[in-house]
Amino acid sequence: MKNSGFVDRIDLPIDRIPSRWYNVIPDLPRLPENYIDNSTGEPVTQEYMERLLVKALAAQESSMERWVAIPEQVREAYKLWRPTPLVRAVAFERELGTPAQIWFKYEATSPTGSHKLNSALAQAYYAKRDGHTRLVTDTGAGQWGSALSLACKLMGLDLLVFMVRASYHQKPYRRYLMETYGAEVRPSPSNTTDFGRKILAERPDHPGSEATAVSEAIECVYDDEGARLSVGAFSNHCLLHHTVIGQELREQLAQIGRTPDFLIASVGCGSNLGGFALPFLEDKLNGADITILAAEPEACAPLTHGEYRLDFADAGGRGPGVYTYTLGHDFVPPPIHAGGLRYHGCAPLVGLIRHEGLLDAVAYPQTEVFDAGTTFARLHGYLPAPESAHAIRAVIDVANECTRTGREATIVFNYSGHGLLDLEAYSRYNAGLLRDVEEEDFAAPSMEALQV
Amino acid sequence: MKNSGFVDRIDLPIDRIPSRWYNVIPDLPRLPENYIDNSTGEPVTQEYMERLLVKALAAQESSMERWVAIPEQVREAYKLWRPTPLVRAVAFERELGTPAQIWFKYEATSPTGSHKLNSALAQAYYAKRDGHTRLVTDTGAGQWGSALSLACKLMGLDLLVFMVRASYHQKPYRRYLMETYGAEVRPSPSNTTDFGRKILAERPDHPGSEATAVSEAIECVYDDEGARLSVGAFSNHCLLHHTVIGQELREQLAQIGRTPDFLIASVGCGSNLGGFALPFLEDKLNGADITILAAEPEACAPLTHGEYRLDFADAGGRGPGVYTYTLGHDFVPPPIHAGGLRYHGCAPLVGLIRHEGLLDAVAYPQTEVFDAGTTFARLHGYLPAPESAHAIRAVIDVANECTRTGREATIVFNYSGHGLLDLEAYSRYNAGLLRDVEEEDFAAPSMEALQV
Repeated sequence: MKNSGFVDRIDLPIDRIPSRWYNVIPDLPRLPENYIDNSTGEPVTQEYMERLLVKALAAQESSMERWVAIPEQVREAYKLWRPTPLVRAVAFERELGTPAQIWFKYEATSPTGSHKLNSALAQAYYAKRDGHTRLVTDTGAGQWGSALSLACKLMGLDLLVFMVRASYHQKPYRRYLMETYGAEVRPSPSNTTDFGRKILAERPDHPGSEATAVSEAIECVYDDEGARLSVGAFSNHCLLHHTVIGQELREQLAQIGRTPDFLIASVGCGSNLGGFALPFLEDKLNGADITILAAEPEACAPLTHGEYRLDFADAGGRGPGVYTYTLGHDFVPPPIHAGGLRYHGCAPLVGLIRHEGLLDAVAYPQTEVFDAGTTFARLHGYLPAPESAHAIRAVIDVANECTRTGREATIVFNYSGHGLLDLEAYSRYNAGLLRDVEEEDFAAPSMEALQV
Repeated sequence: MKNSGFVDRIDLPIDRIPSRWYNVIPDLPRLPENYIDNSTGEPVTQEYMERLLVKALAAQESSMERWVAIPEQVREAYKLWRPTPLVRAVAFERELGTPAQIWFKYEATSPTGSHKLNSALAQAYYAKRDGHTRLVTDTGAGQWGSALSLACKLMGLDLLVFMVRASYHQKPYRRYLMETYGAEVRPSPSNTTDFGRKILAERPDHPGSEATAVSEAIECVYDDEGARLSVGAFSNHCLLHHTVIGQELREQLAQIGRTPDFLIASVGCGSNLGGFALPFLEDKLNGADITILAAEPEACAPLTHGEYRLDFADAGGRGPGVYTYTLGHDFVPPPIHAGGLRYHGCAPLVGLIRHEGLLDAVAYPQTEVFDAGTTFARLHGYLPAPESAHAIRAVIDVANECTRTGREATIVFNYSGHGLLDLEAYSRYNAGLLRDVEEEDFAAPSMEALQV
């Protein structure tokens, strides 16, 4: 029966915040491949991992424990916004005229506006507990950087963020947010590392990239015994922490007596899809008819257009080598507004389930994505991040197929974050200026434009 | 007993969204004075009110019904985010070392980020129901404008927003949000009204003000039989709609067995204080020891520094005359970042309870306000709007007084909205550039700077 309102909502009480994270590795049809130390070509050693990462996180990376207890202080911090609502997009269903029900897990209620805080709090907690004094990380558009900035402030750690230089100057709001939380934010390339100075010497107007930012972050970690690298996606431990999303979702769907037919999320590296969908993987392996669907940008779609092979995790090959879907570590994604989806590869666990035939993928050009995001915002008010709008675009196709076949499916997507700090991109869309691949506006800015 | 975490939270289930608004007028110690038609000096007629306002809202303005049923469609729309959480700021208590408990009603979870949507939805609903085709409004920083833009889109109405011209160009994110929701936004002064053309002819680089925006909005209403004026604060009906805040708060406090000793909110015109605190006025009149405290900006503090008298509601005297606390309708507030608090007067109901000795008031300079807001953000992650940060600044003084006297008081403040679209101001604070009264940066921009 259709509801005449705008939304329905299933909330969970605060004491239903999950008490443990779900580790999918023991349930996978086969184990992930080892990480490779690029300097030796051999599997990485424990020493290698613990010099780069916080000890507890390095251990989680290859843990075979199915359930990992969430430390009490992290669970206390989750009370800042969790559990998140499960919302039924009634007006969207009506607009599409579909017999399907469309629900979304609304992760945008976190103080920093996205799901990223789930793992940021865990990473900062373990870093503090294991005696480190500082984390170093990289960020593009800044969703991860702002989440980790808050987490480090709450847990009592210093944080250094290398932010892609063009974003540092052109998209300053998330930088301001990081600074308000007390983090030090440097544009990358910077003149504070050997690597940064090297590429600035070659090209003084270098606008930066994720690759330069990670390389500078790793260099800072090796220069400071008390520091460790923190990553906002990619790693197994990061996906592990985000499984609070899928666990809450299971309980919320059970309350309304439904099981998901489609689980849809955008994928840049895989942190939001992983946390949202991996807790349902065992059901699928046990025969449940669940389609897990990754929505990628057409401009950078490793799951749709890439291949599964060993490749570097970062452009310079300073991090480990991994098996996953990749477009090649030297692929430079064209400039699009969904900054969180501009990675050449994806998380090894996401690549693995794709390789095993457990994950579907589809790619969309950004004009279609902003069209979907704007439609959604006008029906419900919630303005999606460009990343989340990819999932919404995919939902339209799935719902329309349900209309064609008359299937009363349950479609659930992950609303990973809000787009309030991405309004510049929406303004371009509103003005009819958005193209599928931006050029001039995102070209390397001059030193003058960068105010350096 | 102190909690060791960051927050506690009291949520209400979705079916506890209030079903009626509370109208304080019948419970006041005396009735508000009549509005005055400035062209006659006499009380306004029903005809005058209904030409300016939506008929149902004009009726609510002087209603003596204690309870007003919330229309089903408005209550359905409230499900987009209501009920809002009541959050205990445990980390803030710990930081202040106070024996008091500090709670806040977290209105920032609305899709547009503030409490303003409570009334916007009601106003758009009645406008549509009463056969109007368009609303016209004014907005400064844009919290009201973005809420009404969404409400009009949801209810199926056109909306024209006059946005103070300097904000239109210098603070574009809320403008982009309004446009994404489909509203037409014009800078004020504009060349689309007689009044706008008149003041542009006198001063081509006029940066605009609330006064110019209201005057242009009223002119457009009189030029279009299908249009009505919508106001985001000031009016009795606007405060009425916001009483969902205080009603939910009563229920949440009852759940933890507490009654409020201090109810604290910022006041520009009074919509957030009114909705939050008026539902507790009867308790106070019946002898409960409740202090209701308004936090104002030192730069524009009618309750603290103004006088209670008949004055114009708008600078040009085109709207009605009212009795309230005012700094004079020709007072031009110095430029501060809390754009929502820059009004020369306050809502008549708020003025009346102040005049009757039922409301305390205190004023703070903006550097202290941003210091309080930043401290709060670093303890809990929630970045307050500059308006809400005034309430937080007042909480510090009250909590410190409790520390001095050992009083285990219950302090509750209204967190009226988030500051994610105000990050430019936080960045100035972080950089040590913020002054109590800005000058150069907010001076009338040149035509060139405005890109007109």
